[in-house]
Amino acid sequence: MAHTSLLLTDLYELNMLQAYQQAGMAETADFEFFVRKLPPGRNFLVAAGLEQVVAFLESAAFTDEEIGWLATQPGFSRTFLDSLSALRFTGDVDAMPEGTIFFPDEPILRVSAPLPEAQLFETRIINLLHFQTVVASKASRMVLAAGPMMLADFGLRRAHGAEAGLLAARASYLAGFAGSATVLAARRFGVPASGTMAHSFIQAHDDEARAFEHFARSRHEGVVLLIDTYDTELAARKVVALAPRLAAEGHELKGVRIDSGDLADHARRVRAILDDGGLRQVQIFASGGLDEWALRRLVDAGAPIDACGVGTSLSTSEDAPALDCAYKLQAYAGRAKRKRSEGKATWPGRKQVYRRYDAGRVMAGDLLTLVDDRAAGEAQLRPVMRGGKRLGPVPRLDEVRAHAAAERDRLPKHLRSLEPAAPYPVAVSPALRRLTAEVDRAAESAPA
Amino acid sequence: MAHTSLLLTDLYELNMLQAYQQAGMAETADFEFFVRKLPPGRNFLVAAGLEQVVAFLESAAFTDEEIGWLATQPGFSRTFLDSLSALRFTGDVDAMPEGTIFFPDEPILRVSAPLPEAQLFETRIINLLHFQTVVASKASRMVLAAGPMMLADFGLRRAHGAEAGLLAARASYLAGFAGSATVLAARRFGVPASGTMAHSFIQAHDDEARAFEHFARSRHEGVVLLIDTYDTELAARKVVALAPRLAAEGHELKGVRIDSGDLADHARRVRAILDDGGLRQVQIFASGGLDEWALRRLVDAGAPIDACGVGTSLSTSEDAPALDCAYKLQAYAGRAKRKRSEGKATWPGRKQVYRRYDAGRVMAGDLLTLVDDRAAGEAQLRPVMRGGKRLGPVPRLDEVRAHAAAERDRLPKHLRSLEPAAPYPVAVSPALRRLTAEVDRAAESAPA
Repeated sequence: MAHTSLLLTDLYELNMLQAYQQAGMAETADFEFFVRKLPPGRNFLVAAGLEQVVAFLESAAFTDEEIGWLATQPGFSRTFLDSLSALRFTGDVDAMPEGTIFFPDEPILRVSAPLPEAQLFETRIINLLHFQTVVASKASRMVLAAGPMMLADFGLRRAHGAEAGLLAARASYLAGFAGSATVLAARRFGVPASGTMAHSFIQAHDDEARAFEHFARSRHEGVVLLIDTYDTELAARKVVALAPRLAAEGHELKGVRIDSGDLADHARRVRAILDDGGLRQVQIFASGGLDEWALRRLVDAGAPIDACGVGTSLSTSEDAPALDCAYKLQAYAGRAKRKRSEGKATWPGRKQVYRRYDAGRVMAGDLLTLVDDRAAGEAQLRPVMRGGKRLGPVPRLDEVRAHAAAERDRLPKHLRSLEPAAPYPVAVSPALRRLTAEVDRAAESAPA
Repeated sequence: MAHTSLLLTDLYELNMLQAYQQAGMAETADFEFFVRKLPPGRNFLVAAGLEQVVAFLESAAFTDEEIGWLATQPGFSRTFLDSLSALRFTGDVDAMPEGTIFFPDEPILRVSAPLPEAQLFETRIINLLHFQTVVASKASRMVLAAGPMMLADFGLRRAHGAEAGLLAARASYLAGFAGSATVLAARRFGVPASGTMAHSFIQAHDDEARAFEHFARSRHEGVVLLIDTYDTELAARKVVALAPRLAAEGHELKGVRIDSGDLADHARRVRAILDDGGLRQVQIFASGGLDEWALRRLVDAGAPIDACGVGTSLSTSEDAPALDCAYKLQAYAGRAKRKRSEGKATWPGRKQVYRRYDAGRVMAGDLLTLVDDRAAGEAQLRPVMRGGKRLGPVPRLDEVRAHAAAERDRLPKHLRSLEPAAPYPVAVSPALRRLTAEVDRAAESAPA
């Protein structure tokens, strides 16, 4: 995945590279990735995707074969094409660690590199940071809503393609999910895999109890039976009837899954049937169109559900599948830059975010300022790459997950609600305001 | 992309395969992919993704290395793992051609194969068909709304990962877009590539006119200048001032792009400036947060815009990023099957969709029936694979695109509206209703 073709980019990046080359523009550019505003109803975002960006930047290179293909396309000079084979990322990256909570206008990543490099990698950097941040932010809401219920990602099938499914498993796990149904995510990222059975398994049999038996006998442990194909409570009774035989044969029945109807109501009835049948240790799993609101309703209803599978609403972040984010040039050759397009103006210069905490380690307010402006609080962007090389070891995903959990614990109470809350305070420093005014004055006095 | 690892699947598929093997269940299963209901406000869907499904099924196989990794995971027997290396898709596929318009409950793909094969490939089949259908359906609305304006996909950066960006370019092109900014989509699928320049290019220069000059001089043809970085109309005047010099040097100015503010209003002012400056042939391109509603407003306002770039709302299908779709077992070993879960019941058996047209070749109504039930109209599902092999050559993407355009022309007028319309009539045949009743009776009389 880190080795995605460099042709996976917008054509304009290549057009600009050729123009930069011809104009001799290769001084250091500082680009920052930030989100302009929160999606409606959201109170915070969770940074994710940095690891894939670093892996991409470390390995990105055009192959001869890709350059050969570009030569067949209109508009590129031989000089330009020849220069592509030596192109590597040689710059610096500073970023918030994955799992960090952040807010609008706060850069979560800064790339400082020769202009052509910082420009070329724009498209894929956004593509990688945006999607995992979308999913981690959504997943974090679900984790807050689910209370004691464990959550598993079931979203691969309706994720937007292969990479989305795989990265949704990673992003939701780092944000506090317990695991994913996606097998490749277990292999690639070490995300714990979980899986039960589908309705088709039951339907392929003429008899539901026989289907349960076949499935259980194929596994020695962790047997979870899907009980809603025909009649949920009737199926729960079949499970009770079957359990002694399975236990005698050494097959451990772990749980039942309900995937349709009123989940809280079915769970209560099924719990009673299982308990009456001596199956107190058998857990109840629920799934079927769940999102953070449905999870909270299950918690509020006191539904006896141990774990939930969450699919589409997670892997597509169905209510907010995209963030209004940007990767913008903030300085070139040491001079601060600012886009002033209507409704899309940016804060110029190389920036840092300082975060203050109250006595109880709860987040108390952020300051957006320039990197060379000292301020109180903890600096949120940290050095990640220097001269094209990663600093330090690859963070382990369970460490990232622990950081995300700690961040969640530091969230002010009102932001933990699913309902929209008063915005978290992000102040803009006097130094940054002064620079902004200077950049605007310089632009206005520039020749038209 | 067709060679995605078979580990990109839900764990439960592997669990079920092991159970099928142990129970000796390998007779032919018929699974159908269909959408349960239209997203709110949508009037029709456009089938897409079949080509990637066929390529996947033709090449799908576990590698020794993948099986070796599975052996390190809990729950799989040696017998089962050994059987995986020989597993290939040997079945049949019938499907609606890509670009075909369809409606809820209508299968767009049927897989008939030994149960383990039809089961295992479920996850990736849904993953591939769902996403391109989502994007093609969204793109088709945009094409209908855009009238004479050409559309280009700018959505890679906020698409959900690499594959989503690439396949969104394909799906939107087949649904009538003119091209995509994604370079790899040009290489992989022959989608025409289009690209201009970013704000960062302008900002990296101290002077906007100088930036225009640098960019234009790096290209001999098709120069498009982005004019909204600071002051749109002022920039248009700079373009007029620069044009004679560029023309004298042989650089063809093709257009200007506006990416912010009131696009219709800016376009009118810019058109007047360009026309007054003798640049009538220079086109106006617009972009910036456009969706089908914004496109229609531009058309209604008579905005002099020649082409639009559409990004996030297309590549994430922002208002409806997922479809309520399923891939369900409809028959096993020749016996019709039906899921009866609450709110998720399905029509059993192997089905076909017959479509009638009125005298003007406008779609007049569909009939959902069983494959062995003859009916009036055109059968929409056609043979695609037999015995694991593709029938006929790979359809060319421009042929698929022509089919999608013809389908759009056959849409009843009221369904072409962006507003929700009275549903298109899809009747269920008496034969299918009879079978459904029989399947239910058989289930009710089965031993509990």
